[in-house]
Amino acid sequence: MATTNRRLRCAILGTSGYTGAELVRILARHPGAEIAVLTADRSAGQPVERVFPHLGGLGLPDMIAIEDVEWPGLDIDLVFCALPHGTTQEVVAGLLHRTGHDLVDEMLREDRGDLASGVPGAVKVIDLSADFRLADVDAYKQWYGHEHRAPGLQAEAVYGLTELERERVAGARLVANPGCYPTAAVLPLVPLIERGLIVADDIIIDAKSGVSGAGRAAKEASLFAEVSEGIHPYGIASHRHAPEIEQTLSRAAGRAVTVNFTPHLMPMNRGILSTTYVRLDEGRDATHLRATLLERYENEPFVRIFPDGQVPATRFVRGSNDCIINVFDDRITGRAIIVSAIDNLVKGAAGQAVQNMNVMYGLSETAGLGHVPLFP
Amino acid sequence: MATTNRRLRCAILGTSGYTGAELVRILARHPGAEIAVLTADRSAGQPVERVFPHLGGLGLPDMIAIEDVEWPGLDIDLVFCALPHGTTQEVVAGLLHRTGHDLVDEMLREDRGDLASGVPGAVKVIDLSADFRLADVDAYKQWYGHEHRAPGLQAEAVYGLTELERERVAGARLVANPGCYPTAAVLPLVPLIERGLIVADDIIIDAKSGVSGAGRAAKEASLFAEVSEGIHPYGIASHRHAPEIEQTLSRAAGRAVTVNFTPHLMPMNRGILSTTYVRLDEGRDATHLRATLLERYENEPFVRIFPDGQVPATRFVRGSNDCIINVFDDRITGRAIIVSAIDNLVKGAAGQAVQNMNVMYGLSETAGLGHVPLFP
Amino acid sequence: MATTNRRLRCAILGTSGYTGAELVRILARHPGAEIAVLTADRSAGQPVERVFPHLGGLGLPDMIAIEDVEWPGLDIDLVFCALPHGTTQEVVAGLLHRTGHDLVDEMLREDRGDLASGVPGAVKVIDLSADFRLADVDAYKQWYGHEHRAPGLQAEAVYGLTELERERVAGARLVANPGCYPTAAVLPLVPLIERGLIVADDIIIDAKSGVSGAGRAAKEASLFAEVSEGIHPYGIASHRHAPEIEQTLSRAAGRAVTVNFTPHLMPMNRGILSTTYVRLDEGRDATHLRATLLERYENEPFVRIFPDGQVPATRFVRGSNDCIINVFDDRITGRAIIVSAIDNLVKGAAGQAVQNMNVMYGLSETAGLGHVPLFP
Amino acid sequence: MATTNRRLRCAILGTSGYTGAELVRILARHPGAEIAVLTADRSAGQPVERVFPHLGGLGLPDMIAIEDVEWPGLDIDLVFCALPHGTTQEVVAGLLHRTGHDLVDEMLREDRGDLASGVPGAVKVIDLSADFRLADVDAYKQWYGHEHRAPGLQAEAVYGLTELERERVAGARLVANPGCYPTAAVLPLVPLIERGLIVADDIIIDAKSGVSGAGRAAKEASLFAEVSEGIHPYGIASHRHAPEIEQTLSRAAGRAVTVNFTPHLMPMNRGILSTTYVRLDEGRDATHLRATLLERYENEPFVRIFPDGQVPATRFVRGSNDCIINVFDDRITGRAIIVSAIDNLVKGAAGQAVQNMNVMYGLSETAGLGHVPLFP
Repeated sequence: MATTNRRLRCAILGTSGYTGAELVRILARHPGAEIAVLTADRSAGQPVERVFPHLGGLGLPDMIAIEDVEWPGLDIDLVFCALPHGTTQEVVAGLLHRTGHDLVDEMLREDRGDLASGVPGAVKVIDLSADFRLADVDAYKQWYGHEHRAPGLQAEAVYGLTELERERVAGARLVANPGCYPTAAVLPLVPLIERGLIVADDIIIDAKSGVSGAGRAAKEASLFAEVSEGIHPYGIASHRHAPEIEQTLSRAAGRAVTVNFTPHLMPMNRGILSTTYVRLDEGRDATHLRATLLERYENEPFVRIFPDGQVPATRFVRGSNDCIINVFDDRITGRAIIVSAIDNLVKGAAGQAVQNMNVMYGLSETAGLGHVPLFP
Repeated sequence: MATTNRRLRCAILGTSGYTGAELVRILARHPGAEIAVLTADRSAGQPVERVFPHLGGLGLPDMIAIEDVEWPGLDIDLVFCALPHGTTQEVVAGLLHRTGHDLVDEMLREDRGDLASGVPGAVKVIDLSADFRLADVDAYKQWYGHEHRAPGLQAEAVYGLTELERERVAGARLVANPGCYPTAAVLPLVPLIERGLIVADDIIIDAKSGVSGAGRAAKEASLFAEVSEGIHPYGIASHRHAPEIEQTLSRAAGRAVTVNFTPHLMPMNRGILSTTYVRLDEGRDATHLRATLLERYENEPFVRIFPDGQVPATRFVRGSNDCIINVFDDRITGRAIIVSAIDNLVKGAAGQAVQNMNVMYGLSETAGLGHVPLFP
Repeated sequence: MATTNRRLRCAILGTSGYTGAELVRILARHPGAEIAVLTADRSAGQPVERVFPHLGGLGLPDMIAIEDVEWPGLDIDLVFCALPHGTTQEVVAGLLHRTGHDLVDEMLREDRGDLASGVPGAVKVIDLSADFRLADVDAYKQWYGHEHRAPGLQAEAVYGLTELERERVAGARLVANPGCYPTAAVLPLVPLIERGLIVADDIIIDAKSGVSGAGRAAKEASLFAEVSEGIHPYGIASHRHAPEIEQTLSRAAGRAVTVNFTPHLMPMNRGILSTTYVRLDEGRDATHLRATLLERYENEPFVRIFPDGQVPATRFVRGSNDCIINVFDDRITGRAIIVSAIDNLVKGAAGQAVQNMNVMYGLSETAGLGHVPLFP
Repeated sequence: MATTNRRLRCAILGTSGYTGAELVRILARHPGAEIAVLTADRSAGQPVERVFPHLGGLGLPDMIAIEDVEWPGLDIDLVFCALPHGTTQEVVAGLLHRTGHDLVDEMLREDRGDLASGVPGAVKVIDLSADFRLADVDAYKQWYGHEHRAPGLQAEAVYGLTELERERVAGARLVANPGCYPTAAVLPLVPLIERGLIVADDIIIDAKSGVSGAGRAAKEASLFAEVSEGIHPYGIASHRHAPEIEQTLSRAAGRAVTVNFTPHLMPMNRGILSTTYVRLDEGRDATHLRATLLERYENEPFVRIFPDGQVPATRFVRGSNDCIINVFDDRITGRAIIVSAIDNLVKGAAGQAVQNMNVMYGLSETAGLGHVPLFP
């Protein structure tokens, strides 16, 4: 628990990607946190504004290489890992003292004593990669192509969909921050499945995402000329967020659930829209679903069930940590349509990470997250 | 039937909208047609390039008011009606001599004799509005809010989805050109329903459209700042293209079919992508569906079934009359995903209209429609 | 002057436009202000989130018609006028008691006494329209096509380019908030002209603007399909921001200055980029200009002179009140190129208005304006 | 000269870039040409539609590696080189038999005899890279960082701005196809300089380009998220198209001319807009300039001087080989503003290349180039 006199000291690993930059945007104005360390591999030694000129004038430390962080003495409370998928497990293991990995050992040389003790002050980790999201390490291997490198930590990791796991997040040392698509998809579905209002085996999630979700890596498929003025699905029946969604829905259903999840790439920087087609339990209609969601999320600061008939759009959440939801009757009897939208970089990544930080350290859950959406 | 020595003389009613402009773009370079009359209400008296500067230098007649067209002597073969929905029925009725409507009567004063005779040379009409698409005039009334004003002509009108209705189009005097969404949706579905490969009662069509489909009228919802950087569904369970889709699918199924059709508006000028989720008949998979479509559309010049695994995208058809299609297995056993894409202004409107013209007058079906897609 | 125990009570007139919405976005989170009144003509009686769903959950008053505001008892300190150009003069005159205009009289019936007294507590006005920007009422008439309706107030109004007019703003009762283009253009030019570093008679301002600058009115020219995938100049040699720019530059030069100002409309929601081509005073180069700007704006929280060689881009200021500037040598000897960028809705409108409010009421100038730019 | 009975047999080297794809788009429908060879380094062995799915169904040869082309027997008339800058000189030298370069020698092993003879049928080359554009090989070295590798061919190469160099193009064996920015900029300027209507030493060219001009290479700067919703200048005072523009303007002026040329990158696939600020010769105004351009380009099929007052926009030329131009008076006495627009991939690259081909082989200059602009 952070003392009230002192801001949480945060490190961001992987600053040069969009998620890292978004963490900086949020944390730089957070009343209860400060950015003490920024790492970036290829841009080590540079100020942040060299790679992200919009982040100038914020009084930030220069970025350094991860292996050059002199952890002792930095008094870091919390590490945000915004590293590429697959590279995080060993880093986190090192940070949490469960490995003999050389690089990590060296990183942590002298502060090992403190951290290992588990006493107050020991570092905690929020991992924004996919590395600790799948509880089943066999499923991890199947979807990510290699053995999980820190299965013990995987068992400890808490899946940080804050609204659904608040209590476990509060006590966690390692939070696996959810994927962007799963966040948008499961927030409306879980309460409906838990109450048996929809048929868990007939869920079709047609998702549309902005391009920032693909990261800042230079890829032909993310070029302006390839993306603008068009739309197409990708990863059909094979996207790695499908098992993540299914893991959460299966828990809600109490049995294994398989879903259709079809993401689309479209010309938009930020935003995910999920249009989810569900089959209703006997005698139910959209009104029942909406009422259930209204009740379930009544006191949630970041989940807004829209007024009856009003259609969620990604532009209504841009830059904010909100998830907006509504439910509509289908023309086909016995079916309904759920529409949910988030900003993939905020509620789908950095914002939810900070929300989890707030929960983990007993801060107000909305601290630093009061961004009103930017429209237009 | 047009003589070989002479180009078809065409009139375009409603030139100042995007569909009208697209007809001009195509017909201006058509080897077997010429543009003899252009009408536009509010821009009457102006050259086309005043409202569409990209259409300069094409040697076109100035736009005139529809009531100022002096039909006698113009020797028009074919009228393309690109007027707003609801305003076309009486105009078409007038053109085809089935009305006593004053305005129309006046328009046609002197050429009434010729046209009424129905002899070769009488004018034909391709209507790009929705006015003659729904065969059932009761359904028309329900969806469009008023009695059909030319029910006799409605009975005569041929629904011009060329690949499915080629023979009837060839003999038609009045063609109801299909809507953009229905064209993209039903081309893949009809053969699959006809052969019983999919369950007709469990079809979910999630469609994404560019903004030009909303026309050139100044509406807040179509403003750049309202559309760019975002996506949202609209007309959920209430879009007028739903009954049009159902009409075609019901014919294919031999019984009444209801579908889910959920259109989305997104930041793109042209293009419709349909992601259609279907339940398979026992023992079928995506391979069966793909094979059926390959066989059905083997000789169709404008329908391309993509190679196995290649994903259709709207950018691959921009500016062309193509419909591209592929089929994918779902993660849910017994389901499949169909992806189809068209340019809403070409195959979804003006291009298909010209394709129908070609069929109606015995021209090569691809005449004037050889546009290679414009990418990027 | 606001007491420290109490938030400034603000009214926003004209909430349903983009500038109004942006005022709401900023003021809703301002630590020293609260939104007490929101007016909107055509949406009167509705909650803000009906017209701007992104502004839900903020605890705002419903919008009402301007004539339905019951000013007495509301205890309003400050009125932001975000009304269309040309309609503001009488409203402001009414608010400031300089008119017998009926509508206004009626609006103010009972509180006339208080306000007229000019004692502390009297309402102040920040006008975001162009109505009070041109000090010369003849120039106003020439450019806006009608006599100025409140010439007395015009004489009193302070042109609120905060960095240049801070002291006068502090004491103002009526602030004319600058136009977006002038803000971006003159911030770098004024110090350079004042010190004689550039030739005031040879300034070419090529400006590029996002579409939100055109407002939310439904106009064909602002449609997505008309704007996306293109760029064009408009208002060539005739844009109303030209005299506004010249007014400021003439003051700096001490004589009448005429500039070239050529705005372009481009597919972007927010942002203005000014590329300004200047002729240097004998013996000067870009280094001199940059050094002067660095010195001049050293302590300004919202003006950032970029590091040598780094190029300003609109995306680096999106959603923030920043103006970023840099200077480059030209290939033509004796010339230089100045590049400046702002968010037209923030520093170019609502943000600068709030900055002025902060100055007028002795609040910290950055209060409520700490938005880190949203990128991507 | 091509015989009338036979289509020109063309090879495209470098098919996998946007310029290569655009050459395919145009040549695939050219009535007097056929595509006989397509090369692509990394995609060798694949059909074109693997890398450009929009180019399916055109009956094209598969792409092969450049060194696998078996030139003898292919009977190629014309080679379009769409290779990266700096790699073309040796390839062209090989094709035209002026080198002992091994790779090239091997490529040409057996057909060397024929081609060397220079008899009719010998291959000609249109190079779309910058390799042969600068006549002065010293300037080339300065701007491109290495010695020119084929200075003899450089002396022979004709700069293919068709409207200005038609006669030399007609007789050329090697055409250096102009850059996109220079094409848009110099078409209006050359006639004005030649007639002394403007001051050649005070020309400011503010150009705005779509992203396709940066090619299909995966670069961070070309990512959707880096480009959309923004604009910025680049290559300020250092862009390689500056010397190319100056070369042409210097010829027109009869003396060395230096210009300001400032390109901007903006969110648009295709298009270049040049806003050019010029100082007029004594007593001239925009009317004189416009009249001169009207006269000069009266019979040019691809250059359209817009009606007085109508503003060129890139969207009016999208997909076409047109250059549209207009001239406007400045507010500063003695100055004028020229606005010109092209599609950078058509008139700025592949279209002008085909136009040059038509001229070189005595075909109708508009053959295969009748594309009406695609709007919206």
